[in-house]
Order: sequence, then structure tokens, then C-alpha cells
Amino acid sequence: MIILGIDPGYATVGYGVVQYERAQFTHIRHGAITTPAGIPLHLRLKEIYDDMLTLLDTFHPDAVAVEELFFNTNITTGIQVGHARGVILLACAQRGIAPAEYTPSEVKQSVVGYGRAEKRQVMEMTRVMLKLPRMPRPDDAADALALAICHAHAAGSQLTRQKLGL
Amino acid sequence: MIILGIDPGYATVGYGVVQYERAQFTHIRHGAITTPAGIPLHLRLKEIYDDMLTLLDTFHPDAVAVEELFFNTNITTGIQVGHARGVILLACAQRGIAPAEYTPSEVKQSVVGYGRAEKRQVMEMTRVMLKLPRMPRPDDAADALALAICHAHAAGSQLTRQKLGL
Repeated sequence: MIILGIDPGYATVGYGVVQYERAQFTHIRHGAITTPAGIPLHLRLKEIYDDMLTLLDTFHPDAVAVEELFFNTNITTGIQVGHARGVILLACAQRGIAPAEYTPSEVKQSVVGYGRAEKRQVMEMTRVMLKLPRMPRPDDAADALALAICHAHAAGSQLTRQKLGL
Repeated sequence: MIILGIDPGYATVGYGVVQYERAQFTHIRHGAITTPAGIPLHLRLKEIYDDMLTLLDTFHPDAVAVEELFFNTNITTGIQVGHARGVILLACAQRGIAPAEYTPSEVKQSVVGYGRAEKRQVMEMTRVMLKLPRMPRPDDAADALALAICHAHAAGSQLTRQKLGL
């Protein structure tokens, strides 16, 4: 299966595309959607939305994993990222994909095996699992790849449960 | 000019359409976009977005006024309304409209003449200015009509300044 991970943000949206077959990961692409700070909010949201549709139409992911928002973030950041996250979820809906959502600690637990792992540990483990020669950049893209790995594990175990009739 | 006021929300988005010509208001329509609580977030956002496009394509507003989010609200509400507000601003961008944004106190100042006016005073003044026989329902729609009035006043005074070359 092809999985698109998305680390939602206001100025930068990280994305990572991986393939997961027979418990093996293949790195396909990562990067970031960035919007210029000088333009009005509604036009930045349109750029994020258009780029998100392009990602969906280019990689045809079987699943999309989006990071849940920290509820302990500050309110200004929370509202701003909420705007961006809204148009990201909308793009998924328009392509018939129900996005999966994971908290940062679920991602850490899944990738490193410890919910309070350091950010660097998660990035290094992501790099190793995807057999990348160096750390993915920017950090938002690395976070997005980690989200995709987290979803592969979660979906894999769901599949296993279904196969075993549990 | 035709003005569409929008009171953004998660479960309920209030809207109000007014015409403003030669300092006179004409009420055109008000109501609310509601989304069922039981369906997933991405599908609720799609409903809000689709209905928002329908409003824009039905009434062809010259301007859209959207309430700014309280930054003193709680973080969970702020993030949720942020999602809805994101797809509302996106719909405006797709129809080439730069939405105007007003805080609740700007609306109160504009409609009642006092930034800390009671909610009931704003609603009653909105009813009187639009010559409505009774209070608009739901409250979100009344708030949206008040936003449209606020924008008419703001745009009117801008126009006056432009005409006078100020």
C-alpha cells in the first residue's frame, strides 16, 4: 500500500510518501508545501489545498495519515494550524479518502517503541527504516514520513486482526 | 452591494445576506449550514465547503465578512472552529473574493455603537436595521447578519474616504 503522511502547518506542510508491502518500507518521496508569509490567509489556504490535491493525484495513496493537533499548544498557533488542517482534510474527503489521525506520542511509540522518545530519535529511526542515506529535510517532511510509518504499523496490525478474525 | 456575513462554527455556520445601497439595508436571506454530529470531521468539512460554494454561487456577494476567532476561547473549540473557518476562507479564495474579518467587539461597535454591548442588544438592533418582524433564528444567523451590517458600515466609510480623496 502507498501511504501519504502529512504534518500539517500554516507556513509549512510536511509530506512523506512511502510504500509498505510485506512488512517492508520503500521511500517514495518527501518534501514540504510552503506558502509565502506576505500573502493573505485565504490565498495561503488555497495554495495548501491545491498542492494537497496535486499530491493525492500524483501518488494515489491508499491511505493518508495526518498528525492530530497538540491541545497543549498555544491558542493562536492552534487556530492557525486548524485552518490549514481543515483544507487538508477537505482535499482527502474530495478524493474519497478517510484520513487517519495520530498524536505525536502515538507516532513515537510506533516508530521508536517509546511514546516519549526524543524528536531526534524518531527522525533517525525513520531514516534507518526507509534506508535513506541522510536525514530527510525539512523536519516537517521527516515528521510526515514518521506518520506514514506509524500508519503502516497500525493498518498492518488491523489487517492481521482481520485475517485472524479477531 | 450584496454582502454575505458568515459566523463560522463547527456544527453550525450562520449566514446572512443583505443588500446595502445609499445607506439603506435590505434583508435578503439568513440561515445556517448545519452538519450532523455523527459523521467524521473530513465529511463535515466537505459539507460546509460545498454549502459555502452554493451560497457564493447563489447570491454572488460583492463582499464576504467572516467573524475572527476569539483568541480567548478554549483551545479545543478554537482548533475545531479553525478547521471550519479554513474551508470557508478557501471557498472565498476560489471565487476570487478576499474575505473581510471583524472581531465580535468591532461588530458590536458598528451595530450598536458600543464595543461591549450585550448580545441581545446587537440582535435587536440588527432586527430593527433590517426591518425584520421578529428576531432572526438561529443566533448564528443573527450574528452573521450583524457581520454583514458591520462590513457595510466599514466599506461605506472607506468608500467615502476614497471619494473625498482622504
